[in-house]
Amino acid sequence: MIRIGMMGLGTVGSGVFSILAKHGENIARKVGCDLVIDKVLVQEKDKNRGVMVDSALLTDRPADLLDDPAIQLVVELIGGENPAYQFIVDALKRGKSVVTANKLVVAKYGQELFRLARDNRVNISYEGSVAGGIPVIRPLKESFAANRVEKILGILNGTTNYILSKMSKDGQEFETALQEAQAYGYAERDPSSDLSGLDAAYKIAILASIAFETFVDVNSIYVEGIEGIELEDIDIAAELGYVIKLLAIAKNEQDGLDIRVHPAFVAKDHPLALVNDQYNAIYLHGDAVNDVMSYGRGAGQMPTASAVVADMIQVGKDICQQRVDTLNFHFPVEQTLKNINMVENSYYLRLQVNDQPGVLAQITKVLGDNKVSLASVIQKHKLTPVVPIILVTHRVKEEAVNKSIKMLKQLPDVIAINNLIRVEAL
Amino acid sequence: MIRIGMMGLGTVGSGVFSILAKHGENIARKVGCDLVIDKVLVQEKDKNRGVMVDSALLTDRPADLLDDPAIQLVVELIGGENPAYQFIVDALKRGKSVVTANKLVVAKYGQELFRLARDNRVNISYEGSVAGGIPVIRPLKESFAANRVEKILGILNGTTNYILSKMSKDGQEFETALQEAQAYGYAERDPSSDLSGLDAAYKIAILASIAFETFVDVNSIYVEGIEGIELEDIDIAAELGYVIKLLAIAKNEQDGLDIRVHPAFVAKDHPLALVNDQYNAIYLHGDAVNDVMSYGRGAGQMPTASAVVADMIQVGKDICQQRVDTLNFHFPVEQTLKNINMVENSYYLRLQVNDQPGVLAQITKVLGDNKVSLASVIQKHKLTPVVPIILVTHRVKEEAVNKSIKMLKQLPDVIAINNLIRVEAL
Repeated sequence: MIRIGMMGLGTVGSGVFSILAKHGENIARKVGCDLVIDKVLVQEKDKNRGVMVDSALLTDRPADLLDDPAIQLVVELIGGENPAYQFIVDALKRGKSVVTANKLVVAKYGQELFRLARDNRVNISYEGSVAGGIPVIRPLKESFAANRVEKILGILNGTTNYILSKMSKDGQEFETALQEAQAYGYAERDPSSDLSGLDAAYKIAILASIAFETFVDVNSIYVEGIEGIELEDIDIAAELGYVIKLLAIAKNEQDGLDIRVHPAFVAKDHPLALVNDQYNAIYLHGDAVNDVMSYGRGAGQMPTASAVVADMIQVGKDICQQRVDTLNFHFPVEQTLKNINMVENSYYLRLQVNDQPGVLAQITKVLGDNKVSLASVIQKHKLTPVVPIILVTHRVKEEAVNKSIKMLKQLPDVIAINNLIRVEAL
Repeated sequence: MIRIGMMGLGTVGSGVFSILAKHGENIARKVGCDLVIDKVLVQEKDKNRGVMVDSALLTDRPADLLDDPAIQLVVELIGGENPAYQFIVDALKRGKSVVTANKLVVAKYGQELFRLARDNRVNISYEGSVAGGIPVIRPLKESFAANRVEKILGILNGTTNYILSKMSKDGQEFETALQEAQAYGYAERDPSSDLSGLDAAYKIAILASIAFETFVDVNSIYVEGIEGIELEDIDIAAELGYVIKLLAIAKNEQDGLDIRVHPAFVAKDHPLALVNDQYNAIYLHGDAVNDVMSYGRGAGQMPTASAVVADMIQVGKDICQQRVDTLNFHFPVEQTLKNINMVENSYYLRLQVNDQPGVLAQITKVLGDNKVSLASVIQKHKLTPVVPIILVTHRVKEEAVNKSIKMLKQLPDVIAINNLIRVEAL
């Protein structure tokens, strides 16, 4: 029997309980030992949770779990940085294995935690931290182990994907789509971490660290959210044969790692373009396996609980067999990321200009001076003094685009640069 | 160091060599020991293979591998039933672990081989046997271990998917598409096992056995190939909002396992409808994880070699650590499959009838008498004495449809029943 201390009894925690209640016997066979949740750390012991958890298991004192030598596995489902991070550290130091779904803690403190696990001869697993029920951490470590992973493109945030899908499919404005997402529970009351791209950045940092066998500092990732995307951009994208997605991108290139999160034009016949609503997807290119994509529910109670219990089974198996898989951890040197200025892309640029003769010539001259060449230009006829111009560039370094934009802003007839969106070559 | 005996040096075998040559150092770190291919069993030692394999490794005597106690791992890449099956048995009996990509042998003899592996305290892995580079066997065993898998829908045969895609997208006739597939090397010279659905049947038998924790006898699976699909069916499907795919279906239902392989109408907005050309996909529903889909190259040299080497790494890890994972094998009783007559579906039925008043009434009466109700009827006006009628039924037991067809054939104005295709509820 393996005694488990669970931390947190929110949505995912209740899901874990319900899976163990439903499939406990089958799970015990797979583990080789019974998995028994012995104590559950909660903030308020007496809160009515509507979950069928024996109240005798509940405690509000972390030491009840951490200092109990009988507990061999801690399942951390509190989320957020602290106290979750400290609890995980304490658990590992006391020789307890850890299963967590905490993307923030793994992205930020992964290296330290993996070292602690190795040094204390225990395990730490975190499949639930990225893309909910879609298997991705384990496949990266095992199924694609014979590959040099060259590229990962992820739709890793369900909230922003839901909003962009609604804007794209139903013509909803950003605000309306966000409110709907909140009403359905796909977006949190404070959605800033989702909207800003930070949530996706944690996740791609975790995936890139595994895939490229390095440690990616999440703070060095270029991150841009979807707050600036307007319905007009989405409509023009559609006209040009694209949809706009918040992509988490990680490329292992000759001249360095290119890791970033931002909205991007995705060609509408690419499999990622079809990942809609709250779904997530991970598209991967390996030198042997070529292109592979996985798709599913990237969050939610039961999909995430499915990943957490899968980890509990694998870690439980090792505990049951008194075995430690120290090969699980590898500590390469940290690699510096490519600066976003050095990244090459095509760019979509939407401007508002005075409807004057020669404006387009002025704009194209600025671009030409910076060696930015154009793939397409759309100037729509409108009976207004101010008209939109849409430019799509050929592939060029971001540096040149930024320089151009600075200069464009100084042209008297350029009223506004509405948006700059990268067109991702897939 | 782990000494490996490889059997077969065809396409996939060469791919394995090239991966080991390219990533050997990294792979050794993951395994914890060097993986060294010590001997390679081939039919003709002196054939020029254009592969950079030291000819001193080659042998045409199976005993050189099987009777060498230093060889701890046999990688079987011969394919086909015999001698591959016998070699695997011999290897396991001699205490050697086995990695294979042989779907036929695993589907047919899986239970026996797993028992042999367990009894001899070795391992047998076969990720490469289904869907090439797409991870599916390991995810089913590990990532979805906390689920009751309720449904698997697979596009598991690249040849037939290529042909159906070409028919559907380019309006090619079956024969033309097949010839093109052969020219590109997507179809074998004798494509009968692919076209007949048998290849997909082996694969779904393997997946269903793992997912439903049983042993599915491939001979009891209902199998229907794509030979009868005409361009006209594909066009009408498109009109009705569907594409035709060769689906491998496995459902774990209250009243038994429903496992079958046949062409099916797939709604054109379902993710499986978008899996085209030689790509494969596995769509799975688990009670916790909900819907998950994986997509990628289902065959080919490097994708399959990627899966084989991933298995070699995992099995190698166990050998290196002198560990046996006996929990890997589970031997439940075999379950009887639902007879196809008892399966419920909607059906598409294409008939040719004399253009006479009252024909449709006769037909609908036969269907009504058998309690088959209609969802749609298409009768196209043509200036010919014989006209097509297309019927789509509501969900009904196949029994009733078969009975109806027998009776329809006896109607004097029914010239032919061109096709009956199941409409899969996804």
